[in-house]
Amino acid sequence: MNTFGRAFRITTFGESHGVGIGVVIDGLPGNLPIDITLIQKMLARRRPGQSQFTSSRSEPDEVEVLSGLYQGRSTGAPLTLWIANRDARPEDYSALAEVYRPSHADFTYHYKYANPDPRGGGRSSARETVARVAAGAVALQLLQHIYPELRLIAWTAAIGPYASSYEPVSIEEVEKSPVRCPDLSISALMEAYLQQLREEGDTTGGIIAVKVEGVPVGLGEPIYDKLSARLAYAMFSINAVKGFEMGEGFGSSQKRGSAHNDLFIVDELGHIRPATNNAGGALGGITSGAPLLFRVAFKPVATLRQPQRTVSREGKPVVVAIEGRHDPCPVPRAVPIVEAMTAIVLADFALLARASAHF
Amino acid sequence: MNTFGRAFRITTFGESHGVGIGVVIDGLPGNLPIDITLIQKMLARRRPGQSQFTSSRSEPDEVEVLSGLYQGRSTGAPLTLWIANRDARPEDYSALAEVYRPSHADFTYHYKYANPDPRGGGRSSARETVARVAAGAVALQLLQHIYPELRLIAWTAAIGPYASSYEPVSIEEVEKSPVRCPDLSISALMEAYLQQLREEGDTTGGIIAVKVEGVPVGLGEPIYDKLSARLAYAMFSINAVKGFEMGEGFGSSQKRGSAHNDLFIVDELGHIRPATNNAGGALGGITSGAPLLFRVAFKPVATLRQPQRTVSREGKPVVVAIEGRHDPCPVPRAVPIVEAMTAIVLADFALLARASAHF
Amino acid sequence: MNTFGRAFRITTFGESHGVGIGVVIDGLPGNLPIDITLIQKMLARRRPGQSQFTSSRSEPDEVEVLSGLYQGRSTGAPLTLWIANRDARPEDYSALAEVYRPSHADFTYHYKYANPDPRGGGRSSARETVARVAAGAVALQLLQHIYPELRLIAWTAAIGPYASSYEPVSIEEVEKSPVRCPDLSISALMEAYLQQLREEGDTTGGIIAVKVEGVPVGLGEPIYDKLSARLAYAMFSINAVKGFEMGEGFGSSQKRGSAHNDLFIVDELGHIRPATNNAGGALGGITSGAPLLFRVAFKPVATLRQPQRTVSREGKPVVVAIEGRHDPCPVPRAVPIVEAMTAIVLADFALLARASAHF
Amino acid sequence: MNTFGRAFRITTFGESHGVGIGVVIDGLPGNLPIDITLIQKMLARRRPGQSQFTSSRSEPDEVEVLSGLYQGRSTGAPLTLWIANRDARPEDYSALAEVYRPSHADFTYHYKYANPDPRGGGRSSARETVARVAAGAVALQLLQHIYPELRLIAWTAAIGPYASSYEPVSIEEVEKSPVRCPDLSISALMEAYLQQLREEGDTTGGIIAVKVEGVPVGLGEPIYDKLSARLAYAMFSINAVKGFEMGEGFGSSQKRGSAHNDLFIVDELGHIRPATNNAGGALGGITSGAPLLFRVAFKPVATLRQPQRTVSREGKPVVVAIEGRHDPCPVPRAVPIVEAMTAIVLADFALLARASAHF
Repeated sequence: MNTFGRAFRITTFGESHGVGIGVVIDGLPGNLPIDITLIQKMLARRRPGQSQFTSSRSEPDEVEVLSGLYQGRSTGAPLTLWIANRDARPEDYSALAEVYRPSHADFTYHYKYANPDPRGGGRSSARETVARVAAGAVALQLLQHIYPELRLIAWTAAIGPYASSYEPVSIEEVEKSPVRCPDLSISALMEAYLQQLREEGDTTGGIIAVKVEGVPVGLGEPIYDKLSARLAYAMFSINAVKGFEMGEGFGSSQKRGSAHNDLFIVDELGHIRPATNNAGGALGGITSGAPLLFRVAFKPVATLRQPQRTVSREGKPVVVAIEGRHDPCPVPRAVPIVEAMTAIVLADFALLARASAHF
Repeated sequence: MNTFGRAFRITTFGESHGVGIGVVIDGLPGNLPIDITLIQKMLARRRPGQSQFTSSRSEPDEVEVLSGLYQGRSTGAPLTLWIANRDARPEDYSALAEVYRPSHADFTYHYKYANPDPRGGGRSSARETVARVAAGAVALQLLQHIYPELRLIAWTAAIGPYASSYEPVSIEEVEKSPVRCPDLSISALMEAYLQQLREEGDTTGGIIAVKVEGVPVGLGEPIYDKLSARLAYAMFSINAVKGFEMGEGFGSSQKRGSAHNDLFIVDELGHIRPATNNAGGALGGITSGAPLLFRVAFKPVATLRQPQRTVSREGKPVVVAIEGRHDPCPVPRAVPIVEAMTAIVLADFALLARASAHF
Repeated sequence: MNTFGRAFRITTFGESHGVGIGVVIDGLPGNLPIDITLIQKMLARRRPGQSQFTSSRSEPDEVEVLSGLYQGRSTGAPLTLWIANRDARPEDYSALAEVYRPSHADFTYHYKYANPDPRGGGRSSARETVARVAAGAVALQLLQHIYPELRLIAWTAAIGPYASSYEPVSIEEVEKSPVRCPDLSISALMEAYLQQLREEGDTTGGIIAVKVEGVPVGLGEPIYDKLSARLAYAMFSINAVKGFEMGEGFGSSQKRGSAHNDLFIVDELGHIRPATNNAGGALGGITSGAPLLFRVAFKPVATLRQPQRTVSREGKPVVVAIEGRHDPCPVPRAVPIVEAMTAIVLADFALLARASAHF
Repeated sequence: MNTFGRAFRITTFGESHGVGIGVVIDGLPGNLPIDITLIQKMLARRRPGQSQFTSSRSEPDEVEVLSGLYQGRSTGAPLTLWIANRDARPEDYSALAEVYRPSHADFTYHYKYANPDPRGGGRSSARETVARVAAGAVALQLLQHIYPELRLIAWTAAIGPYASSYEPVSIEEVEKSPVRCPDLSISALMEAYLQQLREEGDTTGGIIAVKVEGVPVGLGEPIYDKLSARLAYAMFSINAVKGFEMGEGFGSSQKRGSAHNDLFIVDELGHIRPATNNAGGALGGITSGAPLLFRVAFKPVATLRQPQRTVSREGKPVVVAIEGRHDPCPVPRAVPIVEAMTAIVLADFALLARASAHF
């Protein structure tokens, strides 16, 4: 439900226009150094209002520690992080409470719960992801404590029709682009497109790519909890995600085995590893030591300034044009969210791998 | 690990060349009529050796009930199904035990477990899916008992470069094609392609599409256990799956919101529903009443008759050419597996929806 | 770990001398009326400083709702309750941080976590139970919404050598006694005994009895999740609990079957029910419709004003005499905690029973 | 439901008079040597018909391995054990199917499931415990592989009014008594009492005591998953259990803190440990290094040869006198069951402790 993970387990709570958003992180081993400024930095990257291409809700997203930290290290008790909502404006949404916005969860939430919080989408709002990012920043610190070589990068690979196959080598490179596309010539086209959509009151989708280097061999639990399965689960738990692929992904469906298979070699360090990485870093659900590579497709932001026809709760036809503060594309701000969920999945498997280490 | 589901929960066990494959189904409410012949029929559809395009391992895959059934109905205790391995040939694999086959799990399993069952891939073999299909046939009976209108169809949408966008209206229509592609002209091309690959000792990937009609509004748990997230999780738990998309999927990443959004209307029966279904049947992780639509991409079968370079456990270069009994494409036989996992996910949500029904 | 329950699930966090204590309640169906004043009342009953027999830490224990409530009803999203620590005095414990107090968790926490919060016992403090009581007050409202006849009463059945077999008929009757023993003549003896212990700087244990009337037939999941097993689990999760018994409990071990068995009859309303209730309300792990009856034994409070020999973290012998603010007996204040955990177990089973209802 | 454990996880299935009883053990790390003869020996100790004081159902209880073992070692895949029912006699129970036997689960199972397997109690029969014992024998091998010093002994501490406080030093000492009471003079009294009860067609309860030496410091997860809480949960999941106490248990409720507290000392090896062990081996839910000590109370066997009044499913008064094959006391045969559940709880914590090891 609102809990994700087995050994590294997050439970999140809070609504878009309530008092704040929180996360309880359970399973963190004791005595892990936790740097709150790194959490704050990752939150800053998710924060709205960073560029002209993200929505203008303006909040510091300051994280407070409610429990689980003592003298800068984890205590073994739940680490709870809280981000107060400083710019909640429930009144922006009062007129919308009675309307089912197209391609939003209003209709299904109302049907399922009878009394969902309607203010700004309540629990279904993307604001919920602030808790994921905070938890992801902790997961990342855990991972880098165990695997100092691990490097996790996500970036914008496509926005609408503009796509790039360029692979960045650092987060810094990604952050140079206001839309987080490290291919700066494509980034410029994306920026122009988003500007145009904003003017037209329209939105678009996009694709985020992820690469994780320095992952050891052996993470993942086969059969139902394959690494790829848990990643797919995690990515599809993010609002607006409509597609996920590992390695060659959908492209591999058109390939021959003789072209797709990754042959094993012994590398210069004497380690057995796949010579190519069409698989995207996992075999049989377990990491092979090759970098993890996957892509996540997002649908367009559902909230349009353009008028759209829909119905009210009572089934009356209405036209809705939503003024609020909304992004033309979910992808630039979702980059740290995708990073966070990736880190959470890997931290979970890292702890599970300790439990299941063979004799 | 080897358990999937929360309220409808399967635990599977057994290896490719061990004594058999089994599944414990827990959470089945009492007094549900269970028709074993329907399980047997679904198993027959997964069974190898059905056509020239599937492998020649020849087994009846007869299901035995080890527990949980009394006078044709569920008892509320675990329903355990067992399919003995009748055509296990461990000797086929003795030479392979010391070799890491390209793009197989041999390497990662050996690294993680030190002593995995090496015979025919052991637990990592696709034979494991016989348990999923048996459980899926039970899940489907549960679903159709609760929702008599529910109709679940999966089919081959692509094999290698051959694809069709035709949507079948029944499983019978699908079964007319030996490769389970209901577009019979495309099916003929696929058959020819598979024949050619077989001759060349090569393999290919493909795509399975799924449609579920008659799903009620309200299945799915938001945030981490969205319907789409659990489906993605389930699909990626199947061997060789490399991609998953809901509704417009990756395509939606290129669309504008004004083109992708599904507007709400009141239909002829007075029900509020989306007029279009680009979302693929769920909003905010909860079914909207529109049909579920999703696609699953499979990589090519990794086992080739063609010689491939790889290394032995000791890191010695070797060339491997695998004679065994293998399909040129995973997709035709995976159709009932995808159906089964879909049914298992939906049965789980159907029981959870009873627990969480609002006041 | 810090989560309890399956369908009605609580996750608690916070330390004795941190900023506060919280609980995330997940699984609450939508649209349930929640009366915050009832939570506040139950918290008041757990609160220290209520009588001369409870410790003098003085806090209002005011509950705040951080999420999940809209217009007085549950939203289907996590209901998060927060109780700030208003009278935290970390300095009271500074001298103790380096000492392993006898029969406290300092030693084992330090060994397991390396860096536990040492202030006032941190996470191991009984203050953690404030979250359970808050959640229990919600569980009780859920239960009484579903089963309006349900009545849950816990009381002090023994303190040290003073015991009573009197069964109260209401919580009001229990609350008349400052030690929550409804047998007022025994209560007077208990009060005198506690006064004496306080003067001597010593402590004692005791027993809490519980009766739940109006429980329907059919709650509980057999085999591992028997009602009695989950109750035992819940009760032993409370600090200082050393014994649990259902119905005749340990006494039944000395009885003959012919004396212990509860014969079935048809009652005046035509319902089949046990004529006696030696079982304590459950058969085979499932409620029989008879009242639930069980008892929970608590060891003496470990914190003594009397000097005790122990060792420091470095293994140096030290003598410790703890001044702080402590009860001479855990039982009077634990009565609402036991009620709360009972309600949480039953609420969980109530929702599970909806999922598993037979066809 | 039918699954117990988190990291070491058992799922059991099968009915008393079905084809057999099985258990899937998941979470076993790879490459653990598994000696099947040790499983068989532990099953032999649970087996009926071993002495005049146990029931005469006569079965070899031969264990078969259905999956998860390769060349005598675990593979990392589920280890599935199966014990066929060789002496099922469903016809013994045909007359009883329509009767609610006093203090049996017939009534509650029938109410909850509508169609439970009625033959010999079906799933609610004590025969289900054969799966626990098989799994426990595996758990014990895992534990002794990790902690070679660990020694687990359970024994009969009381039968009806006959009790002994003698603590045995080995299982061999326990096995010398036909009722598993190592105090042989008390054992003789118990034997005579059971003989008398058998003649009178009556039954009795009893108490099993457990001691586990060589447990390391640090097993157990605080708050809800305290070691004592999981043990209580496990013990109460066994049929007929009505009481559980750790260390001084109910007795501690009458003690003063100054008498009950265990003072810490530094032992001859320089280790900090409690000088006494009134706590029974755990503090704050975590093992302290002192031996685990606990006791489990069983009610009398419910099945009597004496006639008892009860009602049929239709609510008609009937008299039932059950001839079948039944023990006069559950305790002697339950000793290995209690050992098994203890080992399962500890194996689970042993693996979890690897996951949560502090930095």
